[in-house]
Amino acid sequence: MNLEGIKDPKFLKNYSNEQLEDLAQDIRDFLIAKLSVTGGHLGPNLGVVELTLVLHQLFDSPKDKFLWDVGHQAYVHKILTGRAGKFDELRQYKGLCGFPKMSESEHDVWETGHSSTSLSAAMGMAAARDIKGTDDKVIPIIGDGALTGGMALEALNHIGHEQKDLIVVLNDNEMSIAPNVGALHNVLGRMRTAGKYQKAKDELEMLIKKIPAFGGRLAATAERVKDSLKYLLVSGMFFEELGFTYLGPVDGHDLEDLKVNMNYARKTKGPVLVHVITKKGKGYAPAENDAKGTWHGLGPYKIESGEVVKKPGPPSYSGVFAESLKKVAREDDRVVALTAAMPGGTKLDQFAKEFPDRMFDVGIAEQHATTMAAGLATQGMKPVFAVYSTFLQRGYDQVVHDVCRQNLNVFFAIDRAGLVGADGETHQGVFDISYLRHLPNMKILMPKDENELQHIIYTAVNYDGGPIAVRYPRGNGYGVQMDEKLKEIPIGEWEVLRDGSDFSLLTFGTMIPLAMEAADMLARKGIQAEVINARSIKPLDESMLLELARKNRPVLTVEEAALQGGFGSAVLEFFHENDIHSMVVERMGVPDRFIEHGSVSKLWEEIGLTSDNIVQRAEKILPRKRQRA
Amino acid sequence: MNLEGIKDPKFLKNYSNEQLEDLAQDIRDFLIAKLSVTGGHLGPNLGVVELTLVLHQLFDSPKDKFLWDVGHQAYVHKILTGRAGKFDELRQYKGLCGFPKMSESEHDVWETGHSSTSLSAAMGMAAARDIKGTDDKVIPIIGDGALTGGMALEALNHIGHEQKDLIVVLNDNEMSIAPNVGALHNVLGRMRTAGKYQKAKDELEMLIKKIPAFGGRLAATAERVKDSLKYLLVSGMFFEELGFTYLGPVDGHDLEDLKVNMNYARKTKGPVLVHVITKKGKGYAPAENDAKGTWHGLGPYKIESGEVVKKPGPPSYSGVFAESLKKVAREDDRVVALTAAMPGGTKLDQFAKEFPDRMFDVGIAEQHATTMAAGLATQGMKPVFAVYSTFLQRGYDQVVHDVCRQNLNVFFAIDRAGLVGADGETHQGVFDISYLRHLPNMKILMPKDENELQHIIYTAVNYDGGPIAVRYPRGNGYGVQMDEKLKEIPIGEWEVLRDGSDFSLLTFGTMIPLAMEAADMLARKGIQAEVINARSIKPLDESMLLELARKNRPVLTVEEAALQGGFGSAVLEFFHENDIHSMVVERMGVPDRFIEHGSVSKLWEEIGLTSDNIVQRAEKILPRKRQRA
Repeated sequence: MNLEGIKDPKFLKNYSNEQLEDLAQDIRDFLIAKLSVTGGHLGPNLGVVELTLVLHQLFDSPKDKFLWDVGHQAYVHKILTGRAGKFDELRQYKGLCGFPKMSESEHDVWETGHSSTSLSAAMGMAAARDIKGTDDKVIPIIGDGALTGGMALEALNHIGHEQKDLIVVLNDNEMSIAPNVGALHNVLGRMRTAGKYQKAKDELEMLIKKIPAFGGRLAATAERVKDSLKYLLVSGMFFEELGFTYLGPVDGHDLEDLKVNMNYARKTKGPVLVHVITKKGKGYAPAENDAKGTWHGLGPYKIESGEVVKKPGPPSYSGVFAESLKKVAREDDRVVALTAAMPGGTKLDQFAKEFPDRMFDVGIAEQHATTMAAGLATQGMKPVFAVYSTFLQRGYDQVVHDVCRQNLNVFFAIDRAGLVGADGETHQGVFDISYLRHLPNMKILMPKDENELQHIIYTAVNYDGGPIAVRYPRGNGYGVQMDEKLKEIPIGEWEVLRDGSDFSLLTFGTMIPLAMEAADMLARKGIQAEVINARSIKPLDESMLLELARKNRPVLTVEEAALQGGFGSAVLEFFHENDIHSMVVERMGVPDRFIEHGSVSKLWEEIGLTSDNIVQRAEKILPRKRQRA
Repeated sequence: MNLEGIKDPKFLKNYSNEQLEDLAQDIRDFLIAKLSVTGGHLGPNLGVVELTLVLHQLFDSPKDKFLWDVGHQAYVHKILTGRAGKFDELRQYKGLCGFPKMSESEHDVWETGHSSTSLSAAMGMAAARDIKGTDDKVIPIIGDGALTGGMALEALNHIGHEQKDLIVVLNDNEMSIAPNVGALHNVLGRMRTAGKYQKAKDELEMLIKKIPAFGGRLAATAERVKDSLKYLLVSGMFFEELGFTYLGPVDGHDLEDLKVNMNYARKTKGPVLVHVITKKGKGYAPAENDAKGTWHGLGPYKIESGEVVKKPGPPSYSGVFAESLKKVAREDDRVVALTAAMPGGTKLDQFAKEFPDRMFDVGIAEQHATTMAAGLATQGMKPVFAVYSTFLQRGYDQVVHDVCRQNLNVFFAIDRAGLVGADGETHQGVFDISYLRHLPNMKILMPKDENELQHIIYTAVNYDGGPIAVRYPRGNGYGVQMDEKLKEIPIGEWEVLRDGSDFSLLTFGTMIPLAMEAADMLARKGIQAEVINARSIKPLDESMLLELARKNRPVLTVEEAALQGGFGSAVLEFFHENDIHSMVVERMGVPDRFIEHGSVSKLWEEIGLTSDNIVQRAEKILPRKRQRA
């Protein structure tokens, strides 16, 4: 079938199971071929082909509402809702988004990216429906990994209490991104190996009839025994306890099994949980056999061999982080590492190999990870929570209340700081400076390259004055020479990278190469820019700033982070706090809007973070200085 | 017994149950008497007298670690650890803190205030203990309400998985602050009415022996039937499923029952949950009979009658909020209200009386509430989430990712914005401007008085451009005239409250009276201050700021909020963004440290938010302007 000819999912209504099976194969072939070129979330989408087909056949989107938790498994949904023709530009600048996107289609009723949000949103939609008195179905599709997120559990608790009609599809593939952890995972495991609900229920009826009247002390509890028996073979008692009707486990690749249960769910009053077992990467051997999560989301690959196309290059920042942490952990047995379901992405899996007892993967649970780190710190340990900038947002209150307020020695290794590229607006790491800088006791550093990263990691581990955050970008370093011996980088001290007397460029991290390039361009025009590596974002290098003020030198700050409340604002605050009210300070950074997906360099261009623009901004502030002089 | 003579809890070791009972009575009498003068959290503490005595008798604090979740139930613990003499200054400036405080005692090993943090911290402490190879016990004491917080559920999931030795004491009084909601609450209810664990287990053994071999289809599952039977009468199966050994329910006012179970818990390997049933307010009739949560935490009262001493005064901001919301909800059926376990504090209980179907109390679950509001907004509703400033910190990621990113019409009614007084540093609402201002699409307003609040609520409900936050302080309004007819306050427009040509005071909310007073004082010195009600914090009133710049008039910003990234910083950002680099801008606000408890006026004094200081700061910036002129 020509998938690009699909306009909407109505054509599925009269499809036989055979036709659906053919279509499933076409979709798999399509995804394997397209993603081999663009990259993307192959494994999760191969796992939900049949599930998505059945949902679109039995329900009426967009009247009935599908909420794709996390959202990287919505490719099949995108194909069935008229977007197959856009897969050549998947996750590229101005191209198809890798997540649900309302602006792309009326069938995308809820946007995701971060995990565990779908149940709460679904509860909101169901509440709105009941207030308005309409009869649409609300169907969140959530993975077993996402269930460990606290907000999903909060939602389960509330939904079970409210007893709204709601069909939760639990897409259980025994992995989130990496294999799952957590007691809940074990609960699901017991359900998986158990029999089917309906069959169990029938057997149960028989069993109850056979139970004799009990004598003695047991008599009083006989009734309760019978009540409790309903949980006996049901296997979904965890969810039944929370007020859900549990259906399953369902074979997520068996169309008939899916249909029977979804139809049953549709007719059931109150909240239903349909437990669907799927195989991540189903139908493509290299992805099916993936135990580590490599095929969860990846770049281009060779279809035949399943060989991932790797660009050779310098080590990644995450890799340098993990290597350096191992190095310091060998000398300092206080070091304990934590991750929230990202052992691969943060490269802490490497750390765990050497220090299995000093590394904890807590699952998708950033709140717990942050406060567990605080607990470790109270006992004299040196916890290091490696977490993406965008996901630490989940732990904001814990950073404030548990870590900063108690001034505990927690080291936040903030990975994916800055724009992240293809994952787009849900994942851009541009707010961390703004959400951490106003917190008392917090220190924030960012290295200029991978060599400085290793020194800053050493510094952060040795720092015992309270919380410290080290942010570093997604992707590879520059291939700079790595020093053998680690050394401390003084917190609150900046570094002059290039001398210049006309104005000062204050910048850090990824923006330094642009600044250096701009300085070269300006030099050719006779303008001498001083370039400063402002690696200490909080505290600022106050003596250097006072020196700049003494020289009354124009300042241009450049940061790959939100302008509001960011580093440039800290510089403004400092000058005015010190009664220096006449400094020319120009700020460049991420503007006050969300930034969509695309390559990082494209996005930098879009928001004006380029060497050309640095030159222009510099020229803009320079004449004034001269006019005054 | 003279409680003030207690130095540490060692004396309890050899106490008989009779002695403990006498002591329990003394402690109750002490608390009832002391708190009748100072106010405080009476109900929760009367409920844990026996529990705290038994914990301190059987375990060795501080080697063994008690973590008091939320922390307002730690008064008995404070008495037993040598702090009875300080209860006259409870929750007062520089006096005894209402929550655990490391600086007060080595027995306070973990500080709390926000709920649901103790399990994560305990997991961190247990992990540290096992790495170090020591043998101390870690004992979080958590209420049933706090269990609905997502981070507690994340922690349960991880603790069950890791199987660390840990004794979780579930203090189940069927209330958090108000009566609890949520399916989990129902689960606990079923456990409460069930028999005791040990008895059930004995009966179970008998039952299993009596089960005959099953024939037919059931034969295959017979083994599983036997396995499952262990949950049959156990009643704690929810927690057993998560990997905990469940003990209980235990009568929390029966010393012997408590001791037997705590001793059993101590000897059990892996995580144990001891389910203790307590009665909030135990031993004091007015508090015992409290169904609404009045006696949870309160001001002074008359001991004999239980009459709460009420100061007559103007209506509270919370009350005006709820009344106004009812008013607009009568005309606009899109309005839906949400609270996270604070129906009384936010006064939404009043709203619920009139609109029971348009109000949701989701339990302690700010993440879920925020995203549920987002879900409601996608369906054209107008959700209003009333939440304390400090608790919305829990929903930060959901505000970013679900609300602001999708630009949904969610109205955040941010109560307790600014300093809150007696609850102290865990509850000060001073960060919300800094954590919301950098978020694209967000609008932030604050009224100058209760009359403006009602207009701003009307405005926020009618605003359909995306998220909007309205912040208002704890406590009462000024008793100003309330307009009959509600009107819209233009967003992004400020109001000149007093004309003056020498400099401009930009301020909002609670700081306006201080600014007006300072302006009077300055006028007597011949200095004319313009006072501006900067009620629109984001967006700023740009035309007014440009006008100030045109006049090159010094500006003093005053806010009861964190200076870093706050309103004053927004003003700085605006001027410099508009190439106005020579404005004299002085900022006053909350400095970069945590502010402890005390009356709000005392705290204002401590951090320099006084009319005197406004005068001084004004005088500081004025000469300069004149020098330049």
